[in-house]
This record gives sequence, C-alpha cells and structure tokens, in this order.
Amino acid sequence: MGEDRRSFWGWGLESKALDGARKNNLKAMVSMQLGRIETAEIVPPKIEEIELRKPRIAPPESLKTIFDSSPFERAGHSYGKSFRDVVRGLARNFSNPPDLVAFPRSEADISQVMDWCGSKNYALMIYGGGSTVAAGVEPPAGNWPGCVSLDLRYLDKILEIDSRSRAARIQGGIYGPALEAGLKESGLTLRHFPQSFEFSTLGGWIATRSGGHFATNRTHIEDFVESVRMITPAGAVESRRLPASGAGPQVERFVAGSEGTLGVITEAWVRLQERPRYRAGTSIKFPDYSEAVAAVRDLAQSDLFPTNCRLLDPTEAMVSGTAIGKDAILLVAFESADHSPEAAMKRALDICRAHGGKFPDDAATVRSGGDREGAAGNWRRTFLEGPYLRDALACLGMVIETFETAVTWDKFDAFHAGILEAVRGALGKVCGKGIVSCRFTHAYPDGVAPYYTVIGPGRAGSQLSQWNEIKAAASEAILRFGGTITHHHSVGRDHRPWYDRERPELFAKALLAAKQAVDPKGILNPGVLVG
Amino acid sequence: MGEDRRSFWGWGLESKALDGARKNNLKAMVSMQLGRIETAEIVPPKIEEIELRKPRIAPPESLKTIFDSSPFERAGHSYGKSFRDVVRGLARNFSNPPDLVAFPRSEADISQVMDWCGSKNYALMIYGGGSTVAAGVEPPAGNWPGCVSLDLRYLDKILEIDSRSRAARIQGGIYGPALEAGLKESGLTLRHFPQSFEFSTLGGWIATRSGGHFATNRTHIEDFVESVRMITPAGAVESRRLPASGAGPQVERFVAGSEGTLGVITEAWVRLQERPRYRAGTSIKFPDYSEAVAAVRDLAQSDLFPTNCRLLDPTEAMVSGTAIGKDAILLVAFESADHSPEAAMKRALDICRAHGGKFPDDAATVRSGGDREGAAGNWRRTFLEGPYLRDALACLGMVIETFETAVTWDKFDAFHAGILEAVRGALGKVCGKGIVSCRFTHAYPDGVAPYYTVIGPGRAGSQLSQWNEIKAAASEAILRFGGTITHHHSVGRDHRPWYDRERPELFAKALLAAKQAVDPKGILNPGVLVG
Repeated sequence: MGEDRRSFWGWGLESKALDGARKNNLKAMVSMQLGRIETAEIVPPKIEEIELRKPRIAPPESLKTIFDSSPFERAGHSYGKSFRDVVRGLARNFSNPPDLVAFPRSEADISQVMDWCGSKNYALMIYGGGSTVAAGVEPPAGNWPGCVSLDLRYLDKILEIDSRSRAARIQGGIYGPALEAGLKESGLTLRHFPQSFEFSTLGGWIATRSGGHFATNRTHIEDFVESVRMITPAGAVESRRLPASGAGPQVERFVAGSEGTLGVITEAWVRLQERPRYRAGTSIKFPDYSEAVAAVRDLAQSDLFPTNCRLLDPTEAMVSGTAIGKDAILLVAFESADHSPEAAMKRALDICRAHGGKFPDDAATVRSGGDREGAAGNWRRTFLEGPYLRDALACLGMVIETFETAVTWDKFDAFHAGILEAVRGALGKVCGKGIVSCRFTHAYPDGVAPYYTVIGPGRAGSQLSQWNEIKAAASEAILRFGGTITHHHSVGRDHRPWYDRERPELFAKALLAAKQAVDPKGILNPGVLVG
Repeated sequence: MGEDRRSFWGWGLESKALDGARKNNLKAMVSMQLGRIETAEIVPPKIEEIELRKPRIAPPESLKTIFDSSPFERAGHSYGKSFRDVVRGLARNFSNPPDLVAFPRSEADISQVMDWCGSKNYALMIYGGGSTVAAGVEPPAGNWPGCVSLDLRYLDKILEIDSRSRAARIQGGIYGPALEAGLKESGLTLRHFPQSFEFSTLGGWIATRSGGHFATNRTHIEDFVESVRMITPAGAVESRRLPASGAGPQVERFVAGSEGTLGVITEAWVRLQERPRYRAGTSIKFPDYSEAVAAVRDLAQSDLFPTNCRLLDPTEAMVSGTAIGKDAILLVAFESADHSPEAAMKRALDICRAHGGKFPDDAATVRSGGDREGAAGNWRRTFLEGPYLRDALACLGMVIETFETAVTWDKFDAFHAGILEAVRGALGKVCGKGIVSCRFTHAYPDGVAPYYTVIGPGRAGSQLSQWNEIKAAASEAILRFGGTITHHHSVGRDHRPWYDRERPELFAKALLAAKQAVDPKGILNPGVLVG
C-alpha cells in the first residue's frame, strides 16, 4: 500500500487518517461531552477483506486501457463520502459496486464511454472527485445490466490563463490544490475553498453549485463561471466566454447544479482574483447569540463585503476549539489585492460593538501579505481536517450528521429554534443524548446559510438507522421552516425526497424534458436530481 | 386625447414627445454634425389615420371585460419600441396587429386567457410593458388564426415588504416609478433603473435579464430575484424564497431570460437596498481613450465596487452634452446607506490618476443624503429622455440604432476596433456618413459592456432598409469578435439569427424541450428565443 493512496472507505488519504494516539484523544474529548462510549471501536476494513460482486460487464477491446476493474477501485467508487457511506464501508458492505471504473484522459474517451454505455443501457455514474456527501455517485439500485463509474482525475490541466481578464480555462477533473498551485505563478487565484477542497474537482463544484471561500457577495462557484464545456450523450455543449449577457436563460446556470445528470463538465473558463496583499481579521465575542446574529445581518446588509463573516454558536466555538465558554464567536476578515481594508474593518467593528461584540484593541490592524494567522488560521486547519475527524468518530461508533441550508432573515429565529427542537428531539429519541452546533458559512443581504453539526452516541449495528432518523427530522424541519434542502452540499439521492417537495413540479417536468434532449437513454446518474 | 395617454407609435407619453421648438433645436444640432437634413420631417400619425385589419376573433363572453379591441390599443400593441417599430408606426404600417388586447387583473384572468388561446390555437404575445427594442412583443407572421396581446399593467401591486430581509413581493406588471414610489415609505429601494425604467415592468426586467443601475458587482435583475411565480399554460411555477441555494439548477435563473416563452411572471420576491445616505461622484477626463479603458478595467478588478463607472468615448461625451473636446469622460460614483465611501473614492481616483485621468480637487468629497447633482445628474436626465429624442430623430428622417454587448477584457481592443470598422463601413455605404459613439454601461472584473449609438441620415422611404444593413453589420461583428448579441436588450426576434449562432445547439434543443413541457401548444411568444 502506498503512503498516499486514497482511502477506499473513508475521506482523503489513507496516510492522513487519525492514528491511535489521536483517536484516543478524540475518544477522551467525546467522552467528556457525551459520557463513556459504550460501543467497541470499529476497525477500518482492508481491501483484502472486501468481497465484491464479480463485474457483470467487460470493457470493449478498444477502450480497455481506460478501464479498471480492480477491487480497490471498484470498492473506492462504490460510495461518496457521507457518513452513511463511511458506515457502510466500515461494515464491509459494498453490495452494489460499479462493474468498472473508467479513467478517461480526453473528451473523446468520455464520448466513447457514453456511447458504449448508451448502446448497452449501462448506468454511467459521474464520479468526478467522488467527495459527495449526498449519495451523488453511487451506482443505482434496480435492474441495470451494468454500471460504470467515471473518475475524472486525469482531466486535470490548466489549459490557458488570461491575465488581462483574470480568467483561466481549466479542465473539469482538476482537484483544488492542483488548481491553485497551477495558478500561483500568474499571481492569480480562484479562492474557492469548500471543505472538500483537497479531493473535489472544479467540474464537481460547478455541477453541485458549490459554496466557496467568500462569506459575502459572490461566493457560489457559478458566480465565477464565464463559460462551460460539457460532454453529453448527444454531443458537446460549449458556451461562449463572456463577462455577462442578457441573451436567453444563461447556459452556465443551467449546467450549474445539474449534478452529472446532463453531462460531464470537461472544461470551464473561470473568473480569478489576484492573490490578496492586505488582510485584516479578528474574532469577536458575543455574550448574546441573537445580538451576534443581528450583527451578521447588519454586516451582510452593509455592502462592506467581508471575506469572512462566520458566526460560531457557543457549542460550535467550543467543539472547534476556538473558544471555551458561553460566547458566540464571530470571525470577521477582509482581504484585498488592491487596497487596505482598514476603513471597512473599522466600520465592521463598529457594527459588532453596537451589538455587544468584544474584540482586541488591535482588531482593525491591517497586515500586508503573508499567511493567515490566529483564530482564523486554527479554524481553517480544523476545517480541512474535519472529514478525517468525522471518519474517526464513525469508527468510535458515533452518529454524525452535518447539514446546511439557507433561509431569509425574517424566518431565521423560528427556523433555528425549529431545527434545534427537531434535531434534539430525534437525537434524544435515537441516541439518548448528543450535541447540535451551528455555524454560519455564508451571509447574504436577505438571509443566511447556517450549517449544523450533530453528534450522538451510536449503538452497535444501528448507526445507520439512527442517522436516518436524524437526517429525516432535520430535512423535514428545513422544509417546514422555510429553508432550502441544500445550500452547498448538493441534492444527490439523499436529499431527493425533500428536493422534490422544494422544487416546483413544473420545473421538474421542464428539467426532465431538457435532460431527455441531451441524455435520451437516461444513462447519466440515474436517480440523482431527476428521473 | 388625454394629456397622459401612451403613444401608440412611439416611446412613452404623447405629452412628452418633443415639441416643435425642441425638434428644431435637435435638427440644428444634428445638422451641425451631419450636414443639412435632406428629407422632409415625418408627421407622427394620429390613430384616426390608421387602417387596421378587422379582428379575426372575438373574446368569449366570460372574458369579455378584460379584452379591448379598440384601434388605439390594437395599434399600440402591434409593436415594441425599437427604431424599426417607430419607423413602421410613422409609416402608418400596422399590417399585423393583435386581434385583441387583454388586460388581466389577476392570475386567474391570465390562466383563462391562456386556456382559451390554447384551445383555439391563438398566439399569445406577452406584452408586459411593451418597451422591447428587440421585436419581442409583436404578433408572429404566419398562419395563426388569431393573436392576443397580454398587457400586464394592472398587475401593479407591491404585495408584501419584509424589512428585516430587505425584500418585497411585487407583481410582475408594475412599472419602475410605481415600484420605487411604493417602496419609498419603507426606506427601501430596488435601484433598478434601465433606460426603459418609466415604461417597463418588473416581470419584463426578469424575463429579459435586464441590466440595471449598478455599474459593477450585482446589477442584472436576476441578481436581485429571490423567487418567482410564473403562470404557464400547464399551470403555476412558484419557487421558494431563499437567499441562496445549491439545490439543482436554479429555477429563477431558468425563468430569467425566458422572454415570455415559458410563461408570465406574475410575482417575484426581489432583494432591496436601503436608500443611499452617502454619495461621492465625479467626472474624470482622459485625453487617452485606451488609458481610460485601462482605468475602468483596474476599477472593475479592484473590488471597490463603484456604483457608477460609465466611460463615455469622446463622441458620446460630446453628443450627450457632458463635455466638448477630445477627452473621454469617466463618471465614477459611490453610494452607500451604511458608510462613507471616502476611502473607496480616493482609491478609485488614485487608479484614474495613474492612467492620466484629470478631476477636480474636491472630487472625493462625500455628500450626505440629497439628490444626485452635477454631470452625473445631467447625464441621468438625458438618459431617460433618450427614447423621446430617438423618436424625434426618426421623424427627422434619421437612421438610429443602439446596440449593446459584453466582451472579455482580453478581446476588447480588437472587438471595439472591429465594431467601429464594421458599423462605420455600413454607415458609409447606406447613409453616406454618420456618427458612432460608445459608452460603457457596466464593468466586470473579466470584461465590459459597451453600448454603441449609431446615427446617420436616412433617405425617405429607406430608413428601414438602411437600418437593417447597419444592424446586420453590427451583429455580425459582435459575433465575429467575441461579444454577446445582447447584454441587456434581450433577444426577441431581431437578435434571433445571431443568438442562434451564439447559443450552443444542444442547449437550444434542451430549452425547446423544456418549453414544450410548460407550453405544449407553443402559443407563447412564437418566434421569440426558441421554436
């Protein structure tokens, strides 16, 4: 086993999974919060232990070189990376693997795979980077004669950089770190850092309307897409590179969010920024959560456009190690490549002070260049380590769910109370106890995107049914209190029941008709989003 | 004739058309630029002169009260407000009027009109406010047994204001001034001021992806749409009110730009702002146009987000009365309800100075409250009077075209040169001489939206064929040099040939399939956008 091999059952690299010592620390921490852990620790599977159904299909001779039917790849492409996926992996349950994994190296490869699957009526799952937490990539249940998973990791090139317009043409299969590394020399950056950054792709971000780095103003990836190129079973769709247009419904906005049901995003021109030269940032303590919420609303409506405006409720602040106590913590930061954000930061601090926020005397200090430091930096590292931690918690037998949504400000108070009540109720019922925490990931003039983390003790063998109940309770409450079933995690299959209720019925019909125009045999991602 | 009656052949109110004295001034001004005007002045038509085809259809008894078949309304709903429309009106050519004009007062009225038209196979043109300059509202040619025009002026209510989220639920048929007046008491404003502001509707803005007041950052109307409600022949589509979502392709972005081909936008929740309390603005002279362009690019990439960033080329500056000479004029302004934009304005002036821009010593002065003044104010008044002036020029026998586009910065220099060459070539050929001027309406980090105005002397009876050649030359050049066929004027029928080439073919197929799902009989706006 190579040091840097991807985990076939959990997040990221095998080498970065928590080791024994860190797991013990985690266990001690969790025990402090939730009491003694009763269940035995689950030992992660080795690939040799996994019994996979034999491939039902064989690749055509002409395409043989791009297919892999090894147990490691087939098991690794059986699931995405949700809690449910990890628990099934830990249970050695890989009952519906793809028969083959395709690693195309060109659009021609993709078209040929589509043609072949279409001619044989095989389901084709667009795996992208495979980081979905909404069951977006697993083979469909039902009577498919075969299923192929399409891994796009080799479409990983930056093809062109236009420094004058600050944009680049980039292949859809590139991972976050390679994308940023490839831009570095030009002084440009996409600055799109979802939690999946290290193992998700540009095409996947676009296909799922990924939410990014910026807490305010333009932040969803589609705000940064100039044009797309998508391969569908019916041919290529390529839009014209434009800063804006008013010509009909926007092509890019139709592709964005299509979750692999219309085609494979092989390329996009994306809008970039210069790397920031000035930074100001601080963390602000609020003894009163509702005042902190009001401060975020005022900041979001101020048009100051802070880069970060992340409110951690007291539980979240404690769990993330940002603070200990009953304070809510608001991380506020500004960054700019052009000008000192001092005036903006000072005004933001005035707003926070008016709501009872407390911050250091030097909070408005602007730093030039250099890397992020302090509370924000700690938070960031924890952020990217989160999924490894989640896997370790799953091994400890815990039940963990994270879900996110967005809701307008007028509804937030009732919404938040309703979510907490519903989720705590479900936690109490299925786990006996547990923790629910909330942070704001993005703030808009008209609303906010809260992100909830739920942790409860699991019972051996029941982690999934416990999770199901919590997930359903949370999703029901989201719909009932006026939120959206996903702000940036995508719909996949997990959110389908609630998405179908959120989505206008006639829009579903229109979308299905559009899909049939480009995927007439319905082979792409069956069960995801439509159909 | 009432003082405030709408013109049935030209822009706006009859009472506001240029009177004799102002027309003479205009004539003198034009003669100064283009030499003596050879053609006789065209006298605008009176409705009594117009011979209209008899209505081919009669409304059903149950709907009688919402229909109007008077010559005034039928003639007035025969065309939109483009130069081509005005010239046809001046020529007393109303050869294909709608048979009936419907003035629904409710969604139920709209559904009933749709049902009736569907059952009889009558074309239903969604007139909205009728301000299209792209032939978006005229009855289709071809063998339709009947045609109804749907005027939405009575769907003009503000239904709900949510001050906390700064949003309002507003009916689709409301005109700009009524919308702003209705919001005023709440201290909120949509601040969407297209040139058609006085005679266009919220629903029309959304249906055409109208470009608005803000020169940078969020400015297209769809950036401000939280949710929509649309009546289609297959039923209602209503999206959930949300600040953002990642759940599938965005419903609102599918409706935005649909130009009445999918349904009638009866309501929308739109995002509002507080009325600005602080303003800073100035006009900056640039002796060198390409330096001025570079300054706009730097401003657009600075993330300072000026509210106004409108570059007038020397011709445009002269024609609009903003300046006399060879300088390009850049209008830069900031406004805010929250904070003094002094730091931003100073930085913007630094950027302009670095490109050779000259401005008054007090250019960075921030004013509190009050109305806009100075060069920007003059420019604004001229802006809203523009269409009346255009009509007067048409009466003087001139050929006038305005077209707008957007293009990425890397292409701008070649694009602009190419447009000027193509349009001047066509002007020379068909008019002998003429003027082409350019202003930037919107600036983006990755490109710019240039707006061109073309004026040439017409020949009696040939204004339309001359216009056609100029329009075609401009549109061809736009496509050839990498622009979009429309940044904010919509596609309608006039831009169809070039839109069809700009739009990916498979997207056209998908769009048509989606249309058929909601408008199975294809009665809505035939010939516009799709089908």
